Amino acid sequence: MTSKFPTKLLGTAAIASLLLALPALGQDAPAEVVEPAVEATATPEWALIFNTLLFLIGGFLVMWMAAGFAMLEAGLVRTKNVSMQCLKNIALYSVAGIMFWVTGYSLMYTGVDGGFIGSFGPYGFPAPGADTGEAGYSVASDWFFQMVFCATTASIVSGTLAERIKIWPFMLFTVILTGFIYPIAGSWQWGGGWLSEMGFSDFAGSTLVHSVGGWAALAGVLLLGARKGKYNADGTVNAITGSSIPLATLGMFILWLGWFGFNGASQLAMGTIADAGDVSRIFANTNMAAAAGAVAAMIVTQLMYKKIDVTMVINGALAGLVSITAEPLMPSMPIALLIGAVGGVIVVFVVPLLDRLKIDDVVGAIPVHLVCGIWGTLIVPLSNPDTNYGTQIVGILAYGVFTFVVSGIVWFIIKMVIGMRASEEEEEMGLDMAEVGVEAYPEFK
Amino acid sequence: MTSKFPTKLLGTAAIASLLLALPALGQDAPAEVVEPAVEATATPEWALIFNTLLFLIGGFLVMWMAAGFAMLEAGLVRTKNVSMQCLKNIALYSVAGIMFWVTGYSLMYTGVDGGFIGSFGPYGFPAPGADTGEAGYSVASDWFFQMVFCATTASIVSGTLAERIKIWPFMLFTVILTGFIYPIAGSWQWGGGWLSEMGFSDFAGSTLVHSVGGWAALAGVLLLGARKGKYNADGTVNAITGSSIPLATLGMFILWLGWFGFNGASQLAMGTIADAGDVSRIFANTNMAAAAGAVAAMIVTQLMYKKIDVTMVINGALAGLVSITAEPLMPSMPIALLIGAVGGVIVVFVVPLLDRLKIDDVVGAIPVHLVCGIWGTLIVPLSNPDTNYGTQIVGILAYGVFTFVVSGIVWFIIKMVIGMRASEEEEEMGLDMAEVGVEAYPEFK
Amino acid sequence: MTSKFPTKLLGTAAIASLLLALPALGQDAPAEVVEPAVEATATPEWALIFNTLLFLIGGFLVMWMAAGFAMLEAGLVRTKNVSMQCLKNIALYSVAGIMFWVTGYSLMYTGVDGGFIGSFGPYGFPAPGADTGEAGYSVASDWFFQMVFCATTASIVSGTLAERIKIWPFMLFTVILTGFIYPIAGSWQWGGGWLSEMGFSDFAGSTLVHSVGGWAALAGVLLLGARKGKYNADGTVNAITGSSIPLATLGMFILWLGWFGFNGASQLAMGTIADAGDVSRIFANTNMAAAAGAVAAMIVTQLMYKKIDVTMVINGALAGLVSITAEPLMPSMPIALLIGAVGGVIVVFVVPLLDRLKIDDVVGAIPVHLVCGIWGTLIVPLSNPDTNYGTQIVGILAYGVFTFVVSGIVWFIIKMVIGMRASEEEEEMGLDMAEVGVEAYPEFK
Repeated sequence: MTSKFPTKLLGTAAIASLLLALPALGQDAPAEVVEPAVEATATPEWALIFNTLLFLIGGFLVMWMAAGFAMLEAGLVRTKNVSMQCLKNIALYSVAGIMFWVTGYSLMYTGVDGGFIGSFGPYGFPAPGADTGEAGYSVASDWFFQMVFCATTASIVSGTLAERIKIWPFMLFTVILTGFIYPIAGSWQWGGGWLSEMGFSDFAGSTLVHSVGGWAALAGVLLLGARKGKYNADGTVNAITGSSIPLATLGMFILWLGWFGFNGASQLAMGTIADAGDVSRIFANTNMAAAAGAVAAMIVTQLMYKKIDVTMVINGALAGLVSITAEPLMPSMPIALLIGAVGGVIVVFVVPLLDRLKIDDVVGAIPVHLVCGIWGTLIVPLSNPDTNYGTQIVGILAYGVFTFVVSGIVWFIIKMVIGMRASEEEEEMGLDMAEVGVEAYPEFK
Repeated sequence: MTSKFPTKLLGTAAIASLLLALPALGQDAPAEVVEPAVEATATPEWALIFNTLLFLIGGFLVMWMAAGFAMLEAGLVRTKNVSMQCLKNIALYSVAGIMFWVTGYSLMYTGVDGGFIGSFGPYGFPAPGADTGEAGYSVASDWFFQMVFCATTASIVSGTLAERIKIWPFMLFTVILTGFIYPIAGSWQWGGGWLSEMGFSDFAGSTLVHSVGGWAALAGVLLLGARKGKYNADGTVNAITGSSIPLATLGMFILWLGWFGFNGASQLAMGTIADAGDVSRIFANTNMAAAAGAVAAMIVTQLMYKKIDVTMVINGALAGLVSITAEPLMPSMPIALLIGAVGGVIVVFVVPLLDRLKIDDVVGAIPVHLVCGIWGTLIVPLSNPDTNYGTQIVGILAYGVFTFVVSGIVWFIIKMVIGMRASEEEEEMGLDMAEVGVEAYPEFK
Repeated sequence: MTSKFPTKLLGTAAIASLLLALPALGQDAPAEVVEPAVEATATPEWALIFNTLLFLIGGFLVMWMAAGFAMLEAGLVRTKNVSMQCLKNIALYSVAGIMFWVTGYSLMYTGVDGGFIGSFGPYGFPAPGADTGEAGYSVASDWFFQMVFCATTASIVSGTLAERIKIWPFMLFTVILTGFIYPIAGSWQWGGGWLSEMGFSDFAGSTLVHSVGGWAALAGVLLLGARKGKYNADGTVNAITGSSIPLATLGMFILWLGWFGFNGASQLAMGTIADAGDVSRIFANTNMAAAAGAVAAMIVTQLMYKKIDVTMVINGALAGLVSITAEPLMPSMPIALLIGAVGGVIVVFVVPLLDRLKIDDVVGAIPVHLVCGIWGTLIVPLSNPDTNYGTQIVGILAYGVFTFVVSGIVWFIIKMVIGMRASEEEEEMGLDMAEVGVEAYPEFK
């Protein structure tokens, strides 16, 4: 019943905005084209190109993480919801790209100046051939790199809410998250806002990306409720197994690969051998933390359960990656190993804990991205002497409170106005039949 | 019955040519080695290396698209033809690589000089250590990059004809397409032939690659006919659903990723910050068009069908990518968005249209690659003032007539001499059992 | 019964070593930080960055091969062992990364000096910002690139022993292989040891990586025995088909893609246009050999069996890749084609040969990596005039004897002390239920 209203509304709104926006936005930003930079900087041209290349390579690696989340989630939901999970991941990546142009980049990076928010409006590039590199890199390469981070945040939400949220409410939240919540929160630190002035440190986004996604997911799942049949009245939990372990494994490997771009290119420069050395060091530390997370999860699950649940190992590796993301440069390798290993252990303990709290996080995104995002951010001062635990905690709390409260309000409004959740019958038959109309594996019954 | 003849013929011919060719071709091209370039150009060495690196990175990204097509098609055919689709995609990528060396590169790029065809013969590189970069980049990196484009063209054909064409007729056509049709047609524009002199513009190949693949597929499907059971005598259509939506989704993400190389590296240079900026701009526009195609397809399918067919969204994203390929540099972001969105809408309308015409295109390659290839090429003058609609139409028609007619003749000869189509029984049992002997999912029944 | 003992032992040992190691290893290597390089070399900074970038790009491509092996093996085992194969591939990649830091890199590259082994101890990087590039590249990028090669060696073993080896014995062997066997053997050639002084040549590791992995697998499989039901008492062989051809195909494409990094970045430098040209040439030759391997396997299987077994074509492509790896630079394209094609033919003949010998190699890793590794190494002098067949044979034998004997001893000890093989009941039910506790495809029955 309610489904027609938001659909039409959304469709009309989307098309209308597109048409309205086109004439106004048909030109590139002229200002940045005119001034020819006059060699204001002594940076050699090749250094500008290396910096740009770092953003482009890092950017396509992080873009590839969208496929990683899609495969991870497709593998961890039941067959009847796999097409939906694929659809959501394509759609959220697409919407993130559009919204980060419409409002995101400007809100996050333009005119923040120690404050709480940037400016409002779509973003324009230098005209073709006109980028002089005065920013130290190509402007468009920076946009691309920052955009894929925004998309990652949205990906995190998708997994937690799987198997019972309807598509359009999810997409509506994604529009708000990628166009407003993430960019505004991000402006506080990476946009040069108040937290960055205070000395908070989050190198590649344990907090800015991963825990923001996690908080948004947590707010959503509290309003959405658990899947039918997950928790019994007597307090016991029914394990709902994923449909394809190899797809989940593939997703994890894609994410691991993409993370070299995520962390490595967050060095933001490789126009000197010192920067290139730091990027390399980040690659090594990132890999080490992921490896430690996986091995730690293996050992702990073997000791606790006498078997090695491969989904725990998958999440252990991801936990290691999230944990090292707040500071992948400074740690020595043993410290990177430690940070990742603790992440892997956290996952093994937090996954059942959430179930005890009846928080039904389908893919384990909250333990991995939220809890390990906090852990990684908290432990930065262990290896980075320019930071302190107090400020790290302030930052963690600021992001937590803001994202959780605003996301909660947005989810609440969505729930009240158009509804979030599929009906019991739809959930039973699966969202693939209910909303996609295409079964993921029609011949496998 | 007929299967033995072509097989033996092909096998013998292939081995014989290999043996004959070896002594004659055992040396590298000596001419390019001797002259040591004597700094004939002022281009700094690092610029030559950046250009080379762009080709190599772009090249491996486009190579990866072969996996994308394989997964997309494996996901969209029925389980009984999945092994065959995998085999064809491995084989066509391999054959394209060999043929583009044997004849392709020379036909396309050597001595075209405003004409209709290059020269004939295999291609040789500078000896190890002897590439002086006088071309502005490493010669072998350029070969590699152009080769993967040739392979892409062949990939497009594979999907349309799936589930009923036999392997060896398909491979024979692939040999002709990658060794002759694509390179000759390509020489007209990228080889510096008559169309390029006339002012036709096709930046990364909406027409040269995608519509050429689409025309070849169309000629093939008209001679091959629809799958058994697809169209009923009463004019109704049976939907034949694909075997795995997540594999199709994975394929789409791989293609999206690869397209950054496809379009980005078609800038052909990143040895200046201006070029690097343009490559970056292309990344952003390419992503935007794909996103718009996906979102447009989502909205339109929701409005038309009340559900969101994820295969339409997959093809919508690909449609956006094909549409922006003819001019990914000049459009501002809103124009890129528009071009991609129209592509997405085209797909939603053309897919059922083809079914009304009883053209059974298994994966939707004709709407995506042919129709959107035409759309993208046609709309270039909207953002590129150096082009005009008239010349664009001439180019589109020239490629269409040439490819469709020549492909039609080749397919017709193949059909007459060795046959194209599996027998009814083979089609019924599936090509995996009939020709591969290996089921894709033997345990899933 | 025995499973508790090694588990606890391993778990405790791992945690203990971690804790013990941390204080001692918490600092970066100070020596390399102090000296500021004083421009000891005339190499321009951009050349150092290009070299570093080559290692990073090559490194992430080879890292991605871990996913390739995982998908290849997941596709080629039965559904009941798929989760285990995923687990093993995540775990071995993780362990390889850790061990190559703990002992591997130093054993392989530090102070070998024409000898048989390097030094002992974990590896430290320059402090952040302190890499001056005096090595010609960033030290950490080199570590990362060499580490992923070590992981590749371990991946090879995993496939051969699939479906009946238990997880912890396998992991224990992986620790020894990646921490000791591979690095010590590698030191002889790439570490500047005795074989390199003798003039042995193995550009990217046909012998050092692929045949070492193959020998270790062979030693293991001889002690492990064949899967239940593979070989009948009357000498006939039961074909055991893989669970998913598209996953195996995906794995192959991932490996093919990764191989551009494997071979291309083994040039170890792209700071001159000559080096960049050589990297490009390697890309082209690598692709050509893989293509030839695939096509040769197609033709031979068609001629021999009247059908084209796609798993043979997959292994044919991989065989071509392994074959060209010992010398991907010097061959002209026809020679690269020949080397790869012979590799493809080898696979078609050696796979059934192993079955006749009752060596049950689940994925064909021995034909592909061991036999083609030998072939590729042997044929180097055909195109590289600085090598000779005698020294190549010495190298092949040295690696074979050392790896086979030491691996055999290690496997034997493991077998005696904790056992290698799952019980008959466990093998029957599948390792996923027995040791992982998670079925790969719980809904597909």
